[in-house]
Amino acid sequence: MTEPCFDVAHLGHVEVFTDKFEESLDFFTRVYGLKLSGQDETSAYLRAWEDYEFHSLKLTRHHTTGVGHIGYRVSSPQALERRVAAIEASPYKVHGWVEGDMGHGRAFRFEDPFGHVFELYWDTNRYVPPEADRPALKNMASRFHAQGACPRRLDHLNLLSEDVTAFRDFMTTCLGSRVTEQIQLDNGRLGGCWFTVNNKTYDLACTEEHGGGNGRLHHVTYATDQREDILRAADIFLENGVHIETGPHKHAIQGTFFLYVWEPAGNRVELANAGARLILAPDWQTVTWTETERKKGQAWGLKTIPSFHTHGTPPVPGKE
Amino acid sequence: MTEPCFDVAHLGHVEVFTDKFEESLDFFTRVYGLKLSGQDETSAYLRAWEDYEFHSLKLTRHHTTGVGHIGYRVSSPQALERRVAAIEASPYKVHGWVEGDMGHGRAFRFEDPFGHVFELYWDTNRYVPPEADRPALKNMASRFHAQGACPRRLDHLNLLSEDVTAFRDFMTTCLGSRVTEQIQLDNGRLGGCWFTVNNKTYDLACTEEHGGGNGRLHHVTYATDQREDILRAADIFLENGVHIETGPHKHAIQGTFFLYVWEPAGNRVELANAGARLILAPDWQTVTWTETERKKGQAWGLKTIPSFHTHGTPPVPGKE
Amino acid sequence: MTEPCFDVAHLGHVEVFTDKFEESLDFFTRVYGLKLSGQDETSAYLRAWEDYEFHSLKLTRHHTTGVGHIGYRVSSPQALERRVAAIEASPYKVHGWVEGDMGHGRAFRFEDPFGHVFELYWDTNRYVPPEADRPALKNMASRFHAQGACPRRLDHLNLLSEDVTAFRDFMTTCLGSRVTEQIQLDNGRLGGCWFTVNNKTYDLACTEEHGGGNGRLHHVTYATDQREDILRAADIFLENGVHIETGPHKHAIQGTFFLYVWEPAGNRVELANAGARLILAPDWQTVTWTETERKKGQAWGLKTIPSFHTHGTPPVPGKE
Amino acid sequence: MTEPCFDVAHLGHVEVFTDKFEESLDFFTRVYGLKLSGQDETSAYLRAWEDYEFHSLKLTRHHTTGVGHIGYRVSSPQALERRVAAIEASPYKVHGWVEGDMGHGRAFRFEDPFGHVFELYWDTNRYVPPEADRPALKNMASRFHAQGACPRRLDHLNLLSEDVTAFRDFMTTCLGSRVTEQIQLDNGRLGGCWFTVNNKTYDLACTEEHGGGNGRLHHVTYATDQREDILRAADIFLENGVHIETGPHKHAIQGTFFLYVWEPAGNRVELANAGARLILAPDWQTVTWTETERKKGQAWGLKTIPSFHTHGTPPVPGKE
Repeated sequence: MTEPCFDVAHLGHVEVFTDKFEESLDFFTRVYGLKLSGQDETSAYLRAWEDYEFHSLKLTRHHTTGVGHIGYRVSSPQALERRVAAIEASPYKVHGWVEGDMGHGRAFRFEDPFGHVFELYWDTNRYVPPEADRPALKNMASRFHAQGACPRRLDHLNLLSEDVTAFRDFMTTCLGSRVTEQIQLDNGRLGGCWFTVNNKTYDLACTEEHGGGNGRLHHVTYATDQREDILRAADIFLENGVHIETGPHKHAIQGTFFLYVWEPAGNRVELANAGARLILAPDWQTVTWTETERKKGQAWGLKTIPSFHTHGTPPVPGKE
Repeated sequence: MTEPCFDVAHLGHVEVFTDKFEESLDFFTRVYGLKLSGQDETSAYLRAWEDYEFHSLKLTRHHTTGVGHIGYRVSSPQALERRVAAIEASPYKVHGWVEGDMGHGRAFRFEDPFGHVFELYWDTNRYVPPEADRPALKNMASRFHAQGACPRRLDHLNLLSEDVTAFRDFMTTCLGSRVTEQIQLDNGRLGGCWFTVNNKTYDLACTEEHGGGNGRLHHVTYATDQREDILRAADIFLENGVHIETGPHKHAIQGTFFLYVWEPAGNRVELANAGARLILAPDWQTVTWTETERKKGQAWGLKTIPSFHTHGTPPVPGKE
Repeated sequence: MTEPCFDVAHLGHVEVFTDKFEESLDFFTRVYGLKLSGQDETSAYLRAWEDYEFHSLKLTRHHTTGVGHIGYRVSSPQALERRVAAIEASPYKVHGWVEGDMGHGRAFRFEDPFGHVFELYWDTNRYVPPEADRPALKNMASRFHAQGACPRRLDHLNLLSEDVTAFRDFMTTCLGSRVTEQIQLDNGRLGGCWFTVNNKTYDLACTEEHGGGNGRLHHVTYATDQREDILRAADIFLENGVHIETGPHKHAIQGTFFLYVWEPAGNRVELANAGARLILAPDWQTVTWTETERKKGQAWGLKTIPSFHTHGTPPVPGKE
Repeated sequence: MTEPCFDVAHLGHVEVFTDKFEESLDFFTRVYGLKLSGQDETSAYLRAWEDYEFHSLKLTRHHTTGVGHIGYRVSSPQALERRVAAIEASPYKVHGWVEGDMGHGRAFRFEDPFGHVFELYWDTNRYVPPEADRPALKNMASRFHAQGACPRRLDHLNLLSEDVTAFRDFMTTCLGSRVTEQIQLDNGRLGGCWFTVNNKTYDLACTEEHGGGNGRLHHVTYATDQREDILRAADIFLENGVHIETGPHKHAIQGTFFLYVWEPAGNRVELANAGARLILAPDWQTVTWTETERKKGQAWGLKTIPSFHTHGTPPVPGKE
């Protein structure tokens, strides 16, 4: 057996496009409860109160919606070199080094077969809280501000692709990700795949594209400390007129307690709580769900609603 | 900078001695909510419902109390070789290879300067649930049985030593542990140190021995999914006449929500919930607390009660 | 204005019929978490740990399912006389005095126009816990036993009737109930009505019968202390193969957090949590929901599933 | 037996004096999470999001701290007449009718033997939310605003008196309150008494004055929906530099989950959660705790801290 690869440390940030920048920014700060670290001409840099880096969400003014790029931080400068070598030796499209932005130093960019852009970086801009954002307890990245849903940290994102098997090859080759769970369809295809580079149960999921789009985003997720935080957030979303798509409920896959809403520009955003669940086994065996098993619905029987299978961002004209 | 070491995967199990075996076993199964995987002449093998190995607690009939040994599982067979080489090259006392027990294969044993015995192992006995213990969802290690406090998994343990700095050297040398938080006393000594080998915020803590004992245990801890599980457990402990020492409350250090009780033989046992807190930063900077900062008490102001500083197992005659 | 009537103190117990007595009893004790107070030839007498009377659920072996009778305890012997006089002066069918059973003294029985039998009683058999069921805190009716879902107390029940307006007249005339919320359909009929005799937001609801049955039960509900108790119960139901019909979610009407399951004989059973919500206003104005408002679904958008509109007990042959 | 008296419907509001008006107002709105309904020259009128009246807390600029007066709303105009007659026939000091303020119509004022002023009123000023405060669900008094601790409603207050027995006579005579629990000291005196006029477990408590003051306030309490809301509030208090006196923990008496803090002027303020506990029995037997039983501390063993026995408002010079 090969040894597990720990070159990549964790999902660092996601860039999300919005064609309603002001509304989206208001949602993410006032309602969802992220904090603004900085802003440049095109983007707002946001983070949850316990994200240790400058930002975990880059919200970018754009003519459409969806995901701009996905950034993973590596475990060391040497690990970055190893990863770059592996990616350059792979068949995947390489964009090469970029300068970085307000949030981190130079990054190496590359692309999956479906048009999603990834980057790896080591040099980061740690968040240093100004006086007003300094926490009462020094082991926290910043103050628990209690604004809106106020999740603790970025958790994961979910991408869409027309070939989940091909996407799985990309993730294992380029990031050394482990596959913790997956869906095996009756037609022989993979319906979905859940990946992790560390002890989290997943930091990225890929599910099959049914809307005919390319390079689309299914959702971005932040983690709350307790399930109660999500029930409370449901009331906050309700009072603020946010479209609640489905939940709160518990996923059968991964056992995560979830709630899905759409931010003003239509990007799907989740709040999730995994309890104390972690993947600690170094030789975790991928859990494979059959189509029959999936038809039972979510853990407590909730049926997946149709929009969950078709809605992604950017929307595909005439398809939703 | 050196690269982080991931040779050791996770804390696997703790052996706890009891001089009231039947009462302790009744407590750990009926009240605390672990399940019995197996039993031999001297020991009961227990696990939480999501522990994937055969056991995470080995409860051993003994003339006294405290910790028998501490087992960590490594990341791969190669990692085990690397660790053994590092330990053999160290000044620490080596016991050498042992056969393993009902729970796992051969293990390499060694000892810290204070008499606590550790072991590293790769070959493990995965728990395979019998029909009655099979979970409704196939990604769970076993059924959520809902008996007693019913925590999800082993979380960490806390050892006592007369020289925390020396203990820290041992942990970094032998296990490659990272130090996530520590207490710096005014007298120049370390008052406590929190270690991890993975993304958990800690899997082992060492605090200064004030009772004059050697090789003593402060407590063993299991993780619950929610803080509410701990509040509910407090009522269960109350109704079952279990000695609740302190809590529920939130630690300033590590921010863990906690509850400490004594099992019938006197070993301190904790239930803890860290929310969604993880150490994801590969270059996490150790948080150092001063004595002044510690005097503020726990996160919400609870003062540490005296027994917490003196009680350990085995008890030291005439000292408590 | 008339003064509010407080002759009736609270819902005391519900008799539920089952044609699978052993399975139902196993469900209500081991899974749902009620305790058996006593048993006679036909019935088991069950209570939640904080119900102060001998029983709150009388589970009766029967050739079918549904509700046997509904018992309300009055506020005083004089109040009982006043209520009996009012009922005897009403157009409703009177059964007269019955002897009572293991749970209480003589009771006055009468019937609504749809065949549901009610009784009022004053003399009750307070539950006196045996040693093993004695609570650690003397202000509790019995020990918090932590078995199964373990709700605190009986909360309410929901009956079906073909004419909710007629049912409303019955409740206000016979019990002096207040109507806290109701649904006004576009066709001029009432779709549902929520009643209370005290500060609870409701102790009985009546919704329109769509299944063609008579005198049917929609569900019986017990209250948990926290919403988390209901999320935990969902996992218990899942692991025990109980049919989870819908939830957990939050009702728009009354704002109650809910979970509906079917016990083995098919009777619908709910767990509910109202938070700290009470009807304290003596001049509470009935909240009337329109059909349009109801079409938005539950509080967080969950659509009511079809079986919720058709399933009742006993089932109507050929209708479900 | 006499019939229970339901003339008084519920605790309506408490007037609290502050000698740091701006700081107190900032605390109660931004941190504690009440909303400002209106303001006149001397007072701010505040309410929790589910309080149906104009205000439940009248915060008054004053040269000292403590309680201004306590308002209870009666069940009907006739009930008010009955209560006024009973009070006028009693030995207690009568202030007579006052005009009311922004929150309600004319009120009848009277005084307990220790200088606390009470009032009874029927005509009230129902809160009508402006557009921005209108809830998503029409059965709520106003929008769940999610600011600060954001409790649901006023719950109770605790007064100090040198003779709890005398205070008990006052409450039963003037308000018709029931005594749900009490402490019987070894010296024959009552140490504390918990009262209710409805199904709440208590709306007012009186504990023995140990600080030598007169007419003092021990604390005012609002109710949260869940215990988790209180744990979350503890973090909010911590981040805002609020003095957390004791908790979160669970009271042995009444079983309430609690957290006590001091607002900027020194008045003690509690957040509490009773779960689903109610006093439904019309013939509830007062639970009497002995001094020995109380020495066990709170439900889970927390010892009562000294300031809890001595601190009241206004402070007594030289006594704390």
